[in-house]
Amino acid sequence: MNNELRINGDRLWQRLNEMAKIGATALGGCNRQALTDEDKQGRDLFIGWCTAAGCSVRIDEIGNIFVRRSGQNDNLPPVMTGSHLDTQPTGGKYDGVYGVLAGLEVLETLNDHNIETTNPLEVVVWTNEEGARFDMAMMGSAVWAGQMLLEDAYKLADREGATVRDELARHGYIGEHPAKPHDVKAIFETHIEQGPVLEAANQVIGIVTGVQNMSRYRVVIQGTEMHAGPAPMAMRHDPVMALASILPALYQMAERHGRDSRLTVGYLAASPGSSNTVPGEVELTVDIRHPDEKTYKMMLEEFQKIVQDSCTALQLEFQVDCFFESPGVQFDADCIQAVSDSVSTLGYTADRIVSGAGHDACNLAAVAPTSMIFIPCEDGISHNELENIEAGHSEAGANVLLLAMLKMAS
Amino acid sequence: MNNELRINGDRLWQRLNEMAKIGATALGGCNRQALTDEDKQGRDLFIGWCTAAGCSVRIDEIGNIFVRRSGQNDNLPPVMTGSHLDTQPTGGKYDGVYGVLAGLEVLETLNDHNIETTNPLEVVVWTNEEGARFDMAMMGSAVWAGQMLLEDAYKLADREGATVRDELARHGYIGEHPAKPHDVKAIFETHIEQGPVLEAANQVIGIVTGVQNMSRYRVVIQGTEMHAGPAPMAMRHDPVMALASILPALYQMAERHGRDSRLTVGYLAASPGSSNTVPGEVELTVDIRHPDEKTYKMMLEEFQKIVQDSCTALQLEFQVDCFFESPGVQFDADCIQAVSDSVSTLGYTADRIVSGAGHDACNLAAVAPTSMIFIPCEDGISHNELENIEAGHSEAGANVLLLAMLKMAS
Repeated sequence: MNNELRINGDRLWQRLNEMAKIGATALGGCNRQALTDEDKQGRDLFIGWCTAAGCSVRIDEIGNIFVRRSGQNDNLPPVMTGSHLDTQPTGGKYDGVYGVLAGLEVLETLNDHNIETTNPLEVVVWTNEEGARFDMAMMGSAVWAGQMLLEDAYKLADREGATVRDELARHGYIGEHPAKPHDVKAIFETHIEQGPVLEAANQVIGIVTGVQNMSRYRVVIQGTEMHAGPAPMAMRHDPVMALASILPALYQMAERHGRDSRLTVGYLAASPGSSNTVPGEVELTVDIRHPDEKTYKMMLEEFQKIVQDSCTALQLEFQVDCFFESPGVQFDADCIQAVSDSVSTLGYTADRIVSGAGHDACNLAAVAPTSMIFIPCEDGISHNELENIEAGHSEAGANVLLLAMLKMAS
Repeated sequence: MNNELRINGDRLWQRLNEMAKIGATALGGCNRQALTDEDKQGRDLFIGWCTAAGCSVRIDEIGNIFVRRSGQNDNLPPVMTGSHLDTQPTGGKYDGVYGVLAGLEVLETLNDHNIETTNPLEVVVWTNEEGARFDMAMMGSAVWAGQMLLEDAYKLADREGATVRDELARHGYIGEHPAKPHDVKAIFETHIEQGPVLEAANQVIGIVTGVQNMSRYRVVIQGTEMHAGPAPMAMRHDPVMALASILPALYQMAERHGRDSRLTVGYLAASPGSSNTVPGEVELTVDIRHPDEKTYKMMLEEFQKIVQDSCTALQLEFQVDCFFESPGVQFDADCIQAVSDSVSTLGYTADRIVSGAGHDACNLAAVAPTSMIFIPCEDGISHNELENIEAGHSEAGANVLLLAMLKMAS
C-alpha cells in the first residue's frame, strides 16, 4: 500500500487560483456559467493540464469530459472522481472546481511517484451542474446516469434562446462517446461543504454518508381584506393570524425532530400589502429536509396538520401544494468506509455528515458505488463571490481522496 | 319642537342613485375622484339641487362648497353638516356622498314644512377627502380648519402632473371666500360605518364618540442568507424565526387590551424570497389603534418591547420606524348628546361607537363642536365597488341628523 503518499498541496492551490482567473469577478468570485466562452476556456485549460500529465481525454455527447489514467489492467472498471467547472453567475472559486482539480492532483501525484494502480482512474468534469444558465441542475451527470434524456438536455435554452446543443457545438464539446454509464468500480466526489457545520465543529473532513430527503411546498392562505381601523380583531379573517400559530408550530416541530431536521420559510408575502388593510391572502413556501426517511415523512405529515389546524381554527381557506421533491440518497457503505479509513490513516479530525445540497454524486449513486468527501468552507458561505476555503483543508481533502481511490483501485 | 318631523327617505334614496350615475363603474361602484370632470359634474348636480331648494351657495379658495339655508337670525353661527362627493378609483356609491345628500335632505324637509330655524344651517362639500388622486386625505377640511396651508394644498399634483390649483381653476371651483373657519355652533357628519360592527350587532345607528388614536410602524429584521439544506436550525440567523415569536405576541397583546384595540400586519415580505434560501431580511408593517390614549400608548410600548425581545433572543439586528401617526379625536359632549337624544326620540336601536377611519369631522373637531352619526354598511365593505347600504338605514341616519340639527339650531 501507499499510505505514506501525499498530494502536492501547493500545486493544487496554484491550479485553483489559475482556474479562478477565468471569469473572475470584482469581489473575488467567478462567473463561469455552463457552456459560455469562459466555461470553454476553463475546460480547455483543464484538458491542457491533463494531456500534459499523459492522460487520455474523451468527451461524451453531453460534453462531460472523462480524463483517464491507465491501470495495470485497463479492462477493469475504473475508479472515478470528479465534479464540475461551471459556476453560479456570482459564484465562488471552489464550488465544483475543487472536486475536479483534487482529482487531477491525485493523478499527478501518482505520476510523480511512478505508481501504477490495478484499475484505471478517471477524473470527470460534469456539464452544467449549477443549472444557472440552463435551468437544470446536475444536467450532465443526470444524462450520463440515464435520469434525463439527451434530447431534453439538448433543447434547454438560456434567456437569449441559445440551446445546450448549440453551445456545445459552438465550443466543440459535443463528443462522440455515448452519454451512458460504463462499468465503474467506485466514485468519489470531493466538494466544499457549502454549510457551516464542519467549521463550527472544528473538523477538517466531512465523511458524507448521504443526501437529505427534501421537498418544497407552497402554502396559500385566503382571508378577507378589511380596513385596519373599523374591523374588530374578533371579526377579522386575517391570514397573518394563521401565520402567528403556523410559524412557531413549524419551528417547534423541526426542533422536536433533532439536529438533522431542516425547515425553511424562504418565501413569505402578504397581499395586497397595504399597511392599513388586513391582508386578503398570505403565501409562503416551506422547505422540509431530513436524512432519515421515516422522520422526514413524519415531518411532512405534521407540517400538513399544523397548517390545516391553524387555518381551520380561524375559518380560513388554504391550499398546500408540493412543487419540488427529491428523495434522499444513501451512499455506498464500502465507499464511505474507504473515506473513513483514509481519514484515520491521515489522522485528520472528521465528522460523518449528511449533505444538505444536491451534487452530481446524487445522480451517480444510482448507477455505481458512490460517496463524497467534504472540506469546510468559511462561514458556510457558498453560491457567493465571498466563498472561501483554507489551503490546508484543500490539501487534506485531496489526500483523503488519494488514499480512498488507491484503496479502491488496488 | 319638531320631534314629529321626518325626512323624505325616497327623495334621499333617489338622489343617492342619481349622483351614483356620475362616474358609475361596471361593478356598481363609482369612480369620481377629486377634481376630475366627473367630480365637477357631481358638484354641479348638487349645486343645482341646492339652488332649486332656494339655498345660497358660496365656494371657498380650496373649492369647499358651503350651501346655506337662512335662519331667523342670520347673524348667529350656523349649525353645519356635510361630507364629501369625491370617491376612491374603485369606490362605492355612499362613502361621503351619503353625508352630503343627507344634509341637503334635511334642508329640503324643512322647506317642505315651512320650518324656520333660529340659527342658519349649512351643508358643506369638502374637497378631496379621499386623497386618492391628490395624496392628501381630508384635504379641503384640513385647509379650512387651518391644519394645512392653502399653498401646500394647491401644489399637490396627480400622477400626470396636474395640480390641485390647476384643476380647481379649470373647473371654476376656486372660490372667493377665504378657506378659514367662521364661527360655527355645531357640526354633524353622517357617514356609513365602513366596518362590520353595527351590522353584526343589528343596530341601526352608531353614535360616534370619537376617532381612534393610530400609528403605523415599519419593522425590518436582518438575518443572514443561508442555503436551506446544509445550515442546521441552531446555526441560522433566520428573521422568519423572529416572526414566529413576534406575531403571536402581537395578537395576544391586542387581545389583552380589549375589543377596541386594533393591530394589523398589512405588509409582510421576506427577501430574497427564494424557497431554498433562509431569508436575509423580513419587512413588515404594524398598524396599531385604540380609542383610549393611555391604553394606546401602552400598546405602542409593548409592541416595541415584543420586537426587541424576539430579535435580541435570536441575535438579529432590527429597525422600527414610525411612518404615520394620527392622534385620536374625542367628539363634543353636547353634539354626542344631541345625536343620542334624537336616536331616543326616533326609537332606533343604536350603539356608541369609535370610528376606526379618519373623516373630515376629525379636522373640524379642532375648531368647532363636532360629532358623527354612522349607519351600517353591508358586510362592513367600503372603498370597494360592492359597497352597499339599506335604504331604511339611509332614511334613519338622515332623520337622526334632522333632529340633532334642529335641536342645535333652536
